[in-house]
Amino acid sequence: MTDEIVVIEGDGIGREVVPAAVEVLESFDLDFEFVEAEAGDATKEATGEALPDETYDLVADADATLFGAAGETAADVILPLREAVDSFVNVRPAKAYPGVDALRPETDVVFLRENTEGVYAGHEDRLSEDLSTLTRVVTSSASRELAEYACEFVEDGRGPAGDPDEGFTVAHKANVMRETDGRFREEVMAVAAERGVDADEELMDAFATKLPLDPAEYGVVVCPNLAGDVLSDLAAGLVGGLGLLPSANVGHDNALFEPVHGTAPDIAGEGIANPTAAILSAAMLLEYLGHIEEGQRVRDAVEGVLSDGPRTGDLGGSATTDEVTAAIVDRL
Amino acid sequence: MTDEIVVIEGDGIGREVVPAAVEVLESFDLDFEFVEAEAGDATKEATGEALPDETYDLVADADATLFGAAGETAADVILPLREAVDSFVNVRPAKAYPGVDALRPETDVVFLRENTEGVYAGHEDRLSEDLSTLTRVVTSSASRELAEYACEFVEDGRGPAGDPDEGFTVAHKANVMRETDGRFREEVMAVAAERGVDADEELMDAFATKLPLDPAEYGVVVCPNLAGDVLSDLAAGLVGGLGLLPSANVGHDNALFEPVHGTAPDIAGEGIANPTAAILSAAMLLEYLGHIEEGQRVRDAVEGVLSDGPRTGDLGGSATTDEVTAAIVDRL
Ligand SMILES: CC(C)[C@H](C(=O)O)[C@@H](O)C(=O)O
Ligand SMILES: CC(C)[C@H](C(=O)O)[C@@H](O)C(=O)O
Repeated sequence: MTDEIVVIEGDGIGREVVPAAVEVLESFDLDFEFVEAEAGDATKEATGEALPDETYDLVADADATLFGAAGETAADVILPLREAVDSFVNVRPAKAYPGVDALRPETDVVFLRENTEGVYAGHEDRLSEDLSTLTRVVTSSASRELAEYACEFVEDGRGPAGDPDEGFTVAHKANVMRETDGRFREEVMAVAAERGVDADEELMDAFATKLPLDPAEYGVVVCPNLAGDVLSDLAAGLVGGLGLLPSANVGHDNALFEPVHGTAPDIAGEGIANPTAAILSAAMLLEYLGHIEEGQRVRDAVEGVLSDGPRTGDLGGSATTDEVTAAIVDRL
Repeated sequence: MTDEIVVIEGDGIGREVVPAAVEVLESFDLDFEFVEAEAGDATKEATGEALPDETYDLVADADATLFGAAGETAADVILPLREAVDSFVNVRPAKAYPGVDALRPETDVVFLRENTEGVYAGHEDRLSEDLSTLTRVVTSSASRELAEYACEFVEDGRGPAGDPDEGFTVAHKANVMRETDGRFREEVMAVAAERGVDADEELMDAFATKLPLDPAEYGVVVCPNLAGDVLSDLAAGLVGGLGLLPSANVGHDNALFEPVHGTAPDIAGEGIANPTAAILSAAMLLEYLGHIEEGQRVRDAVEGVLSDGPRTGDLGGSATTDEVTAAIVDRL
């Protein structure tokens, strides 16, 4: 059965790294149909809309989407697209690669970020000249669904240690947000206990102190939406920046994959962007669609090239996007 | 005129490091009257209340308070005490000291954290079996008051660079919390512009990536409440942990000073806790009460001892709390 994959390059280096990732996907003999769609700053300039309905509908109806990056309009594009794929979890691995300069080379963590609620549910009101409010939302159902996913993730040995016994850590701020994060924490811990998965917890501020001091302490980390946003970006700083990090927005029977980096306007258009994060996002897409072995081959090829192949400027080399992509495809 | 200083040791190592800080304060010939008060886990056990009304009232009526740490009851103690001193800003310096092992020795930042609202305003509701909400609050008045303080702080050369031109950075999440953090961001930037203080901005997630990668880029950082909580704790990880960090909760004519660390139950009662953070909090108290020179002398003495004096176990030494305190007093 053909899998329909929507491809949205977006803005800036998205237009360079997404084609690289598609080239990697095309190098396998798989039954994929690629459908191009538009979103982002350039789309807004051309059509008045950062995210045209047509793109939203294509994404909602696809089997999976590969997205690059959007500029100023990032939030207007990515937040509705997460909804379009009905995504309840944002999977964000942050791993230091051999041969890549990292502040904390021992870092190898995967954030499982709640992807629908918290402050992102976004009911905001301007109540007076002086006062605005935002209603933060936490439900037991979303918390439990995330927890079930986290348990399965750990049970399947998909955590960094590959060992179901590694369990996970819940990071939250339930000492202040007692009712909302209290609910989150309680439901996630309850699901872990029901399923016999080891779970410990950490206040999100304490976690922010401890992760840089002792990254090897952590593996799979389960968080509310904004905590996951900030803490996974912190982990990115420990592995050398956002440049190499992929992510997956996983829904019930749809998903969207995107590099964590942005549009990098300073180097956009020069053909020298690092395609690694987009290509690792394609590896996550392959695995999501059941092509586990192919996904692993992409990871291995990327790791090989990172350790002894051509490098783009961000990693101290002078190779082009095309050269790095060709080297990766070569190793598949 | 006598300044009344309430002293709350609290729990765990609070009972050891606060007396050390008081000893430092007493070594100056200043007109201070110290009043002891109780709060924390032990107080709750003894009286049923973590924060007795009597303590609250003493703190509210004092000129300043020195607080140690509380255990499980930390939030029940510190959040009302911030209110008791009418604190609108939490000042949190995070600096790496020469001779102290730090992941990022270049780190020298001061967080100015909004201290009254955001998610800490804490209107939470359990709306159904499944759903809880929290109302996050942002006002223009609190945002502007924080910004005025930040401008004065920078203008007075109190930032790490000591140079009014350094300006400050605002860290927020206004791309998602458009109305609330949008208001915060806009008001803070407007006050900076009115006063001719240089201000730039960073999304809080991007800030969490960049701070570990390039701490020297940042000096004074102005944040909403929870952002300040998490980002200042992240900075603590870069300078070697919470062990050395002081903080000030500054109000209109009252203030509370506390080390950022907790009760350290593993070493409490042994007389080996590092008193540095409490003593640096006392230095902030001295400066707050107008004893600028004395405050500076305490800082210099602490830095001297950190670089070539006796050290407690957390810094690889074997000195006791008393020995380190005596060495600091000796250098005053
Ligand atoms: C662009 C922004 C809305 C988004 C988020 O906050 O989720 C981004 O920071 C991310 O993490 O993908
Ligand atoms: C104990 C807790 C309520 C407190 C906070 O969140 O402000 C602490 O983390 C701090 O930063 O002083």
